[in-house]
Amino acid sequence: MSILLDSYVKDRWIAPSTRLVDIPSAIDGHTVARISSLGLDFGEMVHHARTVGGPALRALTFHQRADLLRALAEYLNARKEPLYALAADTGATKRDNAIDIDGGIGTLFAYASRGRRELPSERFVVEGPTESLSKGGNFVGAHVLTALRGVAVHINAFNFPCWGTLEKLAPALLAGLPVITKPATQTTYVTQAMVRSIIESGILPPGTLQLICGSPGDLLDHLGGQDVLSFTGSLETSEKLRNHPAVSRNAVRFIAERDSLNAAVLGPDAAFGTPEFDLFVKEVVREMTVKAGQKCTAIRRILVPRALEGAALDALQTQLSTVTLGDPRLDGVHMGPLVGLTQRDAVRKRIAEIAREAEVVYGDPEKADVLGGDIRVGAFMGPVLLRCGRPREARHVHATEAFGPVATVMPYDDLDEAVSLVAKGEGSLVASVFTYDEASADALISGIAPFHGRVLVLDRDCAKESTGHGSPLPGLVHGGPGRAGGSEELGGLRAVYHGMQRTAVQGSPRRIAALTRAWIKGAPAPVSMSHPFTRDYDALAVGDTVWTHARTITLEDIEHFAQFTGDTFYAHMDEEAAKANPFFPGRVAHGYLVLSFAAGLFVDPAPGPLLANIGLDNLRFLKPVCPGEEIRVRLTVKQKQARKSEYGEVRWDAEVFNQQDETVARYDLLTMSARRRT
Amino acid sequence: MSILLDSYVKDRWIAPSTRLVDIPSAIDGHTVARISSLGLDFGEMVHHARTVGGPALRALTFHQRADLLRALAEYLNARKEPLYALAADTGATKRDNAIDIDGGIGTLFAYASRGRRELPSERFVVEGPTESLSKGGNFVGAHVLTALRGVAVHINAFNFPCWGTLEKLAPALLAGLPVITKPATQTTYVTQAMVRSIIESGILPPGTLQLICGSPGDLLDHLGGQDVLSFTGSLETSEKLRNHPAVSRNAVRFIAERDSLNAAVLGPDAAFGTPEFDLFVKEVVREMTVKAGQKCTAIRRILVPRALEGAALDALQTQLSTVTLGDPRLDGVHMGPLVGLTQRDAVRKRIAEIAREAEVVYGDPEKADVLGGDIRVGAFMGPVLLRCGRPREARHVHATEAFGPVATVMPYDDLDEAVSLVAKGEGSLVASVFTYDEASADALISGIAPFHGRVLVLDRDCAKESTGHGSPLPGLVHGGPGRAGGSEELGGLRAVYHGMQRTAVQGSPRRIAALTRAWIKGAPAPVSMSHPFTRDYDALAVGDTVWTHARTITLEDIEHFAQFTGDTFYAHMDEEAAKANPFFPGRVAHGYLVLSFAAGLFVDPAPGPLLANIGLDNLRFLKPVCPGEEIRVRLTVKQKQARKSEYGEVRWDAEVFNQQDETVARYDLLTMSARRRT
Repeated sequence: MSILLDSYVKDRWIAPSTRLVDIPSAIDGHTVARISSLGLDFGEMVHHARTVGGPALRALTFHQRADLLRALAEYLNARKEPLYALAADTGATKRDNAIDIDGGIGTLFAYASRGRRELPSERFVVEGPTESLSKGGNFVGAHVLTALRGVAVHINAFNFPCWGTLEKLAPALLAGLPVITKPATQTTYVTQAMVRSIIESGILPPGTLQLICGSPGDLLDHLGGQDVLSFTGSLETSEKLRNHPAVSRNAVRFIAERDSLNAAVLGPDAAFGTPEFDLFVKEVVREMTVKAGQKCTAIRRILVPRALEGAALDALQTQLSTVTLGDPRLDGVHMGPLVGLTQRDAVRKRIAEIAREAEVVYGDPEKADVLGGDIRVGAFMGPVLLRCGRPREARHVHATEAFGPVATVMPYDDLDEAVSLVAKGEGSLVASVFTYDEASADALISGIAPFHGRVLVLDRDCAKESTGHGSPLPGLVHGGPGRAGGSEELGGLRAVYHGMQRTAVQGSPRRIAALTRAWIKGAPAPVSMSHPFTRDYDALAVGDTVWTHARTITLEDIEHFAQFTGDTFYAHMDEEAAKANPFFPGRVAHGYLVLSFAAGLFVDPAPGPLLANIGLDNLRFLKPVCPGEEIRVRLTVKQKQARKSEYGEVRWDAEVFNQQDETVARYDLLTMSARRRT
Repeated sequence: MSILLDSYVKDRWIAPSTRLVDIPSAIDGHTVARISSLGLDFGEMVHHARTVGGPALRALTFHQRADLLRALAEYLNARKEPLYALAADTGATKRDNAIDIDGGIGTLFAYASRGRRELPSERFVVEGPTESLSKGGNFVGAHVLTALRGVAVHINAFNFPCWGTLEKLAPALLAGLPVITKPATQTTYVTQAMVRSIIESGILPPGTLQLICGSPGDLLDHLGGQDVLSFTGSLETSEKLRNHPAVSRNAVRFIAERDSLNAAVLGPDAAFGTPEFDLFVKEVVREMTVKAGQKCTAIRRILVPRALEGAALDALQTQLSTVTLGDPRLDGVHMGPLVGLTQRDAVRKRIAEIAREAEVVYGDPEKADVLGGDIRVGAFMGPVLLRCGRPREARHVHATEAFGPVATVMPYDDLDEAVSLVAKGEGSLVASVFTYDEASADALISGIAPFHGRVLVLDRDCAKESTGHGSPLPGLVHGGPGRAGGSEELGGLRAVYHGMQRTAVQGSPRRIAALTRAWIKGAPAPVSMSHPFTRDYDALAVGDTVWTHARTITLEDIEHFAQFTGDTFYAHMDEEAAKANPFFPGRVAHGYLVLSFAAGLFVDPAPGPLLANIGLDNLRFLKPVCPGEEIRVRLTVKQKQARKSEYGEVRWDAEVFNQQDETVARYDLLTMSARRRT
């Protein structure tokens, strides 16, 4: 019995009507589900996202959006079982589901944490320092990021129906951009079940998520310069989307993750018997068989030093022979079928292309033992290892991505050759390097880095904790140059910023301080009657300032501090030696003495809303303080950040002056202050 | 007498041969120069850049590349006069040359400084913090940026033959990417003269700069995934380049700066008589007339509150009437001709389009008084001001860029309408806002920011030092979303990073520390016999560590420190009050006491290579220290940065532990250490 998959359009489920497309099971070919998007009004979907979803999301702060993601992650985490069950028909084993379903939810959690931790409790981001734009200091600039006013359209690949959807959804929602997501046909039913869960949860505001089960129709015609189009799939489809007239004309942001001939490089030092050799064999076989090799990050090219080629081939063959292919629902099965018969045909065709330059040394694309399945009706294919003896002259092995359990071993003579062979992939998502030798690691990393979005150096020190070659991580760039698409799909906030516009704002310090909610020099710094330490967090305003009285630092103070703390550095103790130092005119006060006296000047001793000094940033001692000189301090509220309801962090701009009003030290002081009692 | 313009190809000047194209003078139409690129082998140019120029640049550190830029800037700065003279025939006045020629050289200087200041003395950049990737701490990741292995192809617009060339060249060379530059036909001779100067200087390594005078032929066919294509010009040409098969297929990085209908918005508060009103009038007229309005950043749309429309129109007309049009070589001329008759025809056509929705209220596209020139042979056109009464319904005024001294006034009713009118430009490079009212500024900035790469808030506080609406600055984003191209051509290091690949590298702390040359927790921290403070800068290795002995902090110490420094905060003095504080178990030591004692523990008092403590970063007090507790310190060389030959900055990772090995404080200590005497 097959299910008809509704699309989710303008906050309503819409059943497919005509021209239904059957989605067959990977295991036995029975029709699992049927889809069609015919009749949907894609222009209205875009309009709905822009006018309903966008404003709703943008009304929330980053922290509130992060909380939505966390709630969503928790909700889905409690509802994984039905997804596991459904995913079996896509060919996914338990191990595969851990990557797709648990991995997708994990990405939601990761962006929830990052949003709380790295983004402010605001609706915009200030990026980088204020730029001084004039000598007088009255004209400055700052970069702010604000949410685009459009929609993010996500067109996903079949291999990760959950992770692929969620890893694009999380940063977009965090940015404040509503999403229209379109899963790949073959595995739509898994995505659809997950989206159904998301919608049922009621966590997301209206208009923030819509789902197309079926073709995207004329969706792209409706995109403009405030929209983002994100795609995972083949190079050919990627080009079609990228060069679509509306996308091109309106400079729609386009993010593509496409073909990639990822390499694993065995270092010359990693001989048989070393931990790195074993790690290499294990990792290659894992990458060939997880998701039956249907992974953009899977290892396709296996580079081994010529001297180690025999040992490597032997070990790989031995390890591959332990892999059990079969019905993914059965215990003991390591690898399930490909996603479908069409996909298997494509993989076989690709293998044939590669085989023009390489010989099959393990497996057979046409035959395999299948546990609990039938190779004639299910899309089963065992691992196929090839060997290319002349990789320098080869073309297909570096360009043809057989999207299945397929990889090619190729020997190299020296590290330069290894680098140039890897580069023949013309840009990949990831490469891994197996070496414990410093020089080899250096040469390989610096040589191949320009061609990759990610490089993993796997050795005995990190193996136990490594997440592996094939796992994109939310905090690291995922995407590669050239053939791989030239984008950065993930990478912490970088992915969030895809949904935001970076704008340089120029103006007076007053204006820029008001905009960024951070005090800068030149902005108003009003001095009030009461000491700001006596005012609670909520009563403090950015710019509030206190000036202390002055205190003279005597030679006795310096000597006393030296004896007391043990810091008898000669610059404080010995006039002659201090004079010989290029930075000092003679004996000078300890920096920490200046800092301590400064605190003594501005502290308010009685219990009050200021609870603690929690730290200090960017302290620079700019001018030495000599015995007999005076210091006084200006302390200004620079920034406020409330993370809890009881207290908030206050960043103070502290500047210490001498009697000639020269700055002797400057720093950010961090305090925790109690919030208003309500 | 016209000059034949050689191209610079593979480090040789190549004369144009056949099918020469004449370049007419903007002033009187005489042929200034003739060009042709027919017969050039563009594939070989690309190959030469990649194989000769790239390796030569990549062999240099960022600081060395920055020094090249500075030398180049100084060399050109001494040779501006011939360029000024040549530029007259393009229509450029003295004021225009200051923007194009001096501005271009200024951009070189700016990137030279930035390279020295913000980039390391290395060949790669480490971006952001190390990411912890496992709970155990033995698997971490860092993002590094390395130079692409390709070439930067720059296709420029006619309006800025010098600035346009140099603002693209500077960041590319700093990144380590060789350049092939192709000026626009109309003003090729100015660029060519400047490039000739650059080549004559002998400052740039071979292969790093090539020049095409004429059509780029099949150049784009040769580009791949390691190359960058940067374009300034029309939307139509931009699309052709962007969708070129090689560019699309190989995901060549594409940066476009194209059409832009930049707006100026007069705030509702900026009535006649306010400083902001006057600033607005001055700025609009300046933007209409500088470069005869042939500027991507020029103001095209002038939004005024309906109540102020009459006053604004009057003031603009009055100010425009003071503009003298004529031969740019003559004193008293404010505005020269357009770049050529073809361009003038195009501008007239565009004005006619706009005039379907607007009326001309000042000037005449067909007629003008010309000082020392003839409107029949020179491309003269006076300023043309239009007024559109129904801008909400209009299309052309928001979409048609008349690339000349042309702008349209349109009234708005409230700030929401102003924002939505600005947004109808569908993405612009820059907008300026003239207001001294906080609420108006807030509403306008937040409303229009998503549609712009830059927003200028011009008011009485910053006007004197403002660089103006039309000036892109090297440190700020230049580029806009949507119609403007969706790129960031400038913006400090952002522009440099266009020529680099960002790669996440994962591995053990040892490996990542070796790669980034920055110590991280988990990496080796060898303790040597001698105190590291006794070793000169060059003898210090990243990771070198010293552990101090322990010192007990007594209640007497705390009371003494309090009295001495004046910091009698209750948490140090009053057991009961301290206990009531949510962060403290009772009386605790001052943070600065801990810091001072820590210094006392690790200081080496005798004169030696360590010269001074220059600062502190990222200090966090992580656990209070109670009376009777012990502290000891681990100090590890975290990073080294040599900016001078006599001494270098050392960043130390300092960690203070209590008697239970819990971290009580952690910070980066910055010292200046003498270098080895040679």
